[in-house]
Amino acid sequence: MASAGRAGVGTNQEDIRRHNLGTVLGHVHRSERLSRAELTARMGLNRSTIAGLVTELESLGLAEQAKPSGARIGAGRPSVDVKARSGAYVLAVDLRVDGLTVARVGLGGIIQSRATGPVPQGHDPHAITDSVLDLMRLVVKDVEPGSALVGVGVGVPGIIRAEDGLVRLAPNLSWRDVPFAQILGERLGSIGMPVLGNDADLGALAEHLRGAGVGVEDLVYLSGEVGVGAGVIVSGHKLEGAGGYAGEIGHMPFLPDGKLCHCGAHGCWETEIGAEAIALAIGCPAERVGALGEFLEGVHEASPDLRQVGRHLGRGIAGIVNMLNPRVIVLGGYLRSLSPLVQEDVDQEIAVHALTASHELVRVTLPGLGGDSVLHGAAELAFEPLLADPVGRLATACRDAEAALAV
Amino acid sequence: MASAGRAGVGTNQEDIRRHNLGTVLGHVHRSERLSRAELTARMGLNRSTIAGLVTELESLGLAEQAKPSGARIGAGRPSVDVKARSGAYVLAVDLRVDGLTVARVGLGGIIQSRATGPVPQGHDPHAITDSVLDLMRLVVKDVEPGSALVGVGVGVPGIIRAEDGLVRLAPNLSWRDVPFAQILGERLGSIGMPVLGNDADLGALAEHLRGAGVGVEDLVYLSGEVGVGAGVIVSGHKLEGAGGYAGEIGHMPFLPDGKLCHCGAHGCWETEIGAEAIALAIGCPAERVGALGEFLEGVHEASPDLRQVGRHLGRGIAGIVNMLNPRVIVLGGYLRSLSPLVQEDVDQEIAVHALTASHELVRVTLPGLGGDSVLHGAAELAFEPLLADPVGRLATACRDAEAALAV
Repeated sequence: MASAGRAGVGTNQEDIRRHNLGTVLGHVHRSERLSRAELTARMGLNRSTIAGLVTELESLGLAEQAKPSGARIGAGRPSVDVKARSGAYVLAVDLRVDGLTVARVGLGGIIQSRATGPVPQGHDPHAITDSVLDLMRLVVKDVEPGSALVGVGVGVPGIIRAEDGLVRLAPNLSWRDVPFAQILGERLGSIGMPVLGNDADLGALAEHLRGAGVGVEDLVYLSGEVGVGAGVIVSGHKLEGAGGYAGEIGHMPFLPDGKLCHCGAHGCWETEIGAEAIALAIGCPAERVGALGEFLEGVHEASPDLRQVGRHLGRGIAGIVNMLNPRVIVLGGYLRSLSPLVQEDVDQEIAVHALTASHELVRVTLPGLGGDSVLHGAAELAFEPLLADPVGRLATACRDAEAALAV
Repeated sequence: MASAGRAGVGTNQEDIRRHNLGTVLGHVHRSERLSRAELTARMGLNRSTIAGLVTELESLGLAEQAKPSGARIGAGRPSVDVKARSGAYVLAVDLRVDGLTVARVGLGGIIQSRATGPVPQGHDPHAITDSVLDLMRLVVKDVEPGSALVGVGVGVPGIIRAEDGLVRLAPNLSWRDVPFAQILGERLGSIGMPVLGNDADLGALAEHLRGAGVGVEDLVYLSGEVGVGAGVIVSGHKLEGAGGYAGEIGHMPFLPDGKLCHCGAHGCWETEIGAEAIALAIGCPAERVGALGEFLEGVHEASPDLRQVGRHLGRGIAGIVNMLNPRVIVLGGYLRSLSPLVQEDVDQEIAVHALTASHELVRVTLPGLGGDSVLHGAAELAFEPLLADPVGRLATACRDAEAALAV
């Protein structure tokens, strides 16, 4: 409150400018192409201020101005177009029980390079870290020289403590209180600490920003992997809960004397619709559950057992509709391949169990980002510090990831 | 944007003053007693502005200033205390399937008078309206002359469309798309239209403002009546959903081939823990479910059947913990009487089915407002226009409710 006058004012103005710079970058990052006139309108700042901010982003290598596109705003000169440039990128990691994907993602959410590999058996966090680093080395090859690595985001199928990236529980990895952010961060060295997010939360974030839920304020992303989780967006904000652990829909009690779940309880919803249940229903051998996606691609007609899985899926979705009254439910992970096969059963169960008022408002849909929702969400998480303060983040960014990862 | 200069400025200042007046009144309304110094600190306005606002509230009959209480703020003179006065009141209605309560509630959430009666058989909305009006006539007798009736709030066990108070569905009243706000509003005449809210939402609101959840940002109020619903507060805000229908936890699928629910589906949670299930477990005859509360008071040891209801309650609560990660879960309605009888079973099921990270953050508790949570919530809903603009609301308030209700 009692900071020295001039310095105080100077800092505040500089703070505002940095904040505005980040906001402009955010708009550019989330739109494929945007005119300076649109930016001016969205931000409520005057044209010369916007022109100055865009020029600064250009000099930072984060944006470029292009010839006007066809559309004109009003009667005047056509406005200059602004789009993201690849002067900054992040590394996004999608850690699934059955596979590992790492991508180099540029501003604008562009996947520049990707690599996938198996998850080491036993799910040892150090062994997984080794694999993540191997994949990272692959995707940072051929990065534009001098381009800034501004963050690492990791999607994990578990419950994450936000402040330090401790994985409280990832039942299907058999992890309890594993400090994965710290383990990976130690190996990343000068690249800095990674940010971890729950896979379903990241799927929801990405589908909300660039997928099937753009402009939708109430959205549920159902992540159907070995386990089943939900990322929930409510009135435009992530549903966090008291500790950030909300959304563990896979562990809703579903069958009183159902199968044993990896969490230790019996009859959780995911024991009836998760990968193991699907595998059993289509005769995929247990040791090949990791390739369940491929197996499902080869199924063209649902067996009675698979239709039963579909009915369980629909009945659970109806519960989500009744509880959360969302506008959109996105079926991610294996549910993408499963749902077209059993759509009739799913729809019928939803119709029976969902209350009309909520049912008539909801749309159940496939992800707009295909199988990459979680990966894109991890990238968005990693981009957040850059969008909060582009100049500050760039100042400490890693400019030679290949060297940093060679250690 | 282009309003005339002076008038524009004048209006804005007046708007700000009215808004501040409402904010002061809100603080006074929510605290039993508050010093002017505390008000000054909470609102960040200067002392003379606060003194002026309090004096205006006093002249409106909404607040009174009292001798300083013992506690001093700082070293100066003790600050003057401010508390609510009964110059304005609301009528709050708690419409349950098994009974009707109407209360006259003054500022500060003080129940000045209450009356209860049965709900007409058949649940005809016009007949219920007649009963509501009869009870209202009882509670407005002996109201302080000139005191302003500033709103009517009604808690309904159903799904309400916020904009017009249409009851989309109240399964246990057999109501579908009943325009109850309009039906009641026509009879209220000069008193004005009532505001309807879902009973569980109102319970959550009241427990958050004055009950077991004061200061808690993530709270679930479970309303156990004939049906079971949840009012959910997330990060301090009501969980609405796309149409305001969120929280229908009673219709979570719970037993695949369970009993037929009033909603038309089978196996909803409320068929296992609602009033009918409890009545069956304690041998309360079906025709006396309306007096289930009294029956439960007479039970001192849980039968095996009742313990089974307790296990179902605990298992469902675990699902809520996993899905929403709340800090507090308040057990309202019949669950107040039930839960002490079966606490061990409830706790055990929660421990088995709730994920540790979320379980260790949650507290399951009885309502701070006893059986009046919904009634208080209905009153809070009715007070909202007064707290938004005290002068404007008082200008059109009904000053003689007895006469208005005599029509």
